[in-house]
Amino acid sequence: MAADPFAGAVCPIPISRYPEVQLAHGGGGRLTDQLIEDLFIPAFGNPALGARHDGARLELGGARLAFSTDSYVVRPLFFPGSDIGALAVNGTVNDLAMCGARPKYLSCGFIIEEGLPMETLWRVVQSMRRAADAAGVTVVTGDTKVVDRGKGDGLYVNTAGVGLVEHPHVIAPMSVRDGDVVIVSGDLGRHGMAVMAAREGLEFESAIESDCAPVAAPALALLDEGLAVHCMRDLTRGGLASAMVEIATASGLHLHLDERAIPVREDVRGACEVLGFDPCYVANEGRFVVILPADDADRALAVLRGFEVSNGAVRIGTVDTTPAGLVTLRSSIGATRVMDMLSGEQLPRIC
Amino acid sequence: MAADPFAGAVCPIPISRYPEVQLAHGGGGRLTDQLIEDLFIPAFGNPALGARHDGARLELGGARLAFSTDSYVVRPLFFPGSDIGALAVNGTVNDLAMCGARPKYLSCGFIIEEGLPMETLWRVVQSMRRAADAAGVTVVTGDTKVVDRGKGDGLYVNTAGVGLVEHPHVIAPMSVRDGDVVIVSGDLGRHGMAVMAAREGLEFESAIESDCAPVAAPALALLDEGLAVHCMRDLTRGGLASAMVEIATASGLHLHLDERAIPVREDVRGACEVLGFDPCYVANEGRFVVILPADDADRALAVLRGFEVSNGAVRIGTVDTTPAGLVTLRSSIGATRVMDMLSGEQLPRIC
Repeated sequence: MAADPFAGAVCPIPISRYPEVQLAHGGGGRLTDQLIEDLFIPAFGNPALGARHDGARLELGGARLAFSTDSYVVRPLFFPGSDIGALAVNGTVNDLAMCGARPKYLSCGFIIEEGLPMETLWRVVQSMRRAADAAGVTVVTGDTKVVDRGKGDGLYVNTAGVGLVEHPHVIAPMSVRDGDVVIVSGDLGRHGMAVMAAREGLEFESAIESDCAPVAAPALALLDEGLAVHCMRDLTRGGLASAMVEIATASGLHLHLDERAIPVREDVRGACEVLGFDPCYVANEGRFVVILPADDADRALAVLRGFEVSNGAVRIGTVDTTPAGLVTLRSSIGATRVMDMLSGEQLPRIC
Repeated sequence: MAADPFAGAVCPIPISRYPEVQLAHGGGGRLTDQLIEDLFIPAFGNPALGARHDGARLELGGARLAFSTDSYVVRPLFFPGSDIGALAVNGTVNDLAMCGARPKYLSCGFIIEEGLPMETLWRVVQSMRRAADAAGVTVVTGDTKVVDRGKGDGLYVNTAGVGLVEHPHVIAPMSVRDGDVVIVSGDLGRHGMAVMAAREGLEFESAIESDCAPVAAPALALLDEGLAVHCMRDLTRGGLASAMVEIATASGLHLHLDERAIPVREDVRGACEVLGFDPCYVANEGRFVVILPADDADRALAVLRGFEVSNGAVRIGTVDTTPAGLVTLRSSIGATRVMDMLSGEQLPRIC
């Protein structure tokens, strides 16, 4: 064996506290954040990664590009309203759109557990193709690995995507300003509850289907309309709350949300109550927030409401300066509390 | 549940023969090829994917780019000479280089099994950083997912890469011409045997270390030198043989190799004999073939030998027209036989 090149160096994560990776390190909440801040950013540190956005903004060969990746480990592979294939396409398409980029090309890496029915793989691939067509992207390169039985869970899918940035704005948490408003593109919590119901075999009064969908069209329409979009963020793992906390932290500003304005369908709210979930922390796969100057809010709402995927867009909050770096929520009974990131794991393997 | 959108459609893979995914579907040989031809290309069909190259060539925003992805599921995570982290960087860097692109940016997706020691993740990430620095690429975006205990195998890593194409050549199997020669950049079989030895706890007479290394510098130097490179291919899963068969099939030409000229270290040859492997089918992670006109061969060899990673470059074969689409090998005893792809799985989870 070669000499250990790591001799003498020390892992920066306090291993007395987390000597092993926990499920919550992948949950999109506090522990994911720690892993990124304490392990990945120090190792790979560069401005693109440090911006803590859904994707990286790059200049290459004179072109302005966005580049993003996600792996998908959702269980089960098929659930009401969508499946891992459509999720893997829409998730990466939406991350590119949140950078203000027009999604163009995807790569696709499959990690298949030996014994997966060929028919299942085929159904997933067909779903990816339909999702790619719907989102206007092309899958141009891919890879397949097979792992032995008991070393996977049917199928994991990675996609990476490249998009084109056609405008000069820097759409990122650091662009958020005092006086901005926060708009959400539609009702929250459906993806997480749909996956949960499918996994646990639960039956709710009405069928809750995932909101999984591409949101690039309405997101880019805001830019085409000339609106001064400061930040966009899709509300996946960790839900609205985690996205808001990340933006407040990165911008150093105060986001104030009105709980009564946050749209949650009655059946989703009921299912969340039964299971003990807060809809603000449940994952969505076709919802995003837009933060922009108050003067542009009405036009932004009009643009968003022109698309089916965002026709439930509403204003849910405002941005000011204090308390700096925090998110506060005015509840339906009028009390105000600080909204924090998820500290543990609420719904593992939701995406 | 929604109506099944797949009703009436039929999976094109003959499920009577392979109703389930086999390990060999990920082995880089015949079954991987069938999966790509029968399932992925029909679903995603587009010219970039159909070119069957290591990556896709794209035009975006006026820039000529290459885009590639691979997932890494090697077992064990650390092995003589390298580890999954360096492999994940070099593998994608090399795929971009084989498209004639200068590798620039990587994405990185981790799928971690709950319970992985944090120290192990940290060592892998440090190794990725060193490999990225050595290859001149930047990791700009990433993702972490955690799966429950028993649903993974410690760590799987996906990387995708974007590179810049700075020359007008189409470096691809279809550019190969009658009269070309085949050059290999160095000795074969080390990566596969190093992983095998680490996995099985074997001890050979001498330590066999993986050849894992970035090859972009010598590959791009050939282009900078103005040589008419027709095709390059790195010799990973499936080894030299699978790469040669893919190129012969795609070009419709005949590749004729001289077994005596194919460089294999004595200790590697011995280990292969003991274990019943053919070094031409064993994976490498720092070796590639170059196919170019005979007139350019001497200059190409001189360029390659100027780099440490390719200082063992030699000529191993020629290209002509018949038998069309086949690879033949003249053995050390003078007999000629057809070289085929691996039909089963030789070394699972080698990369």
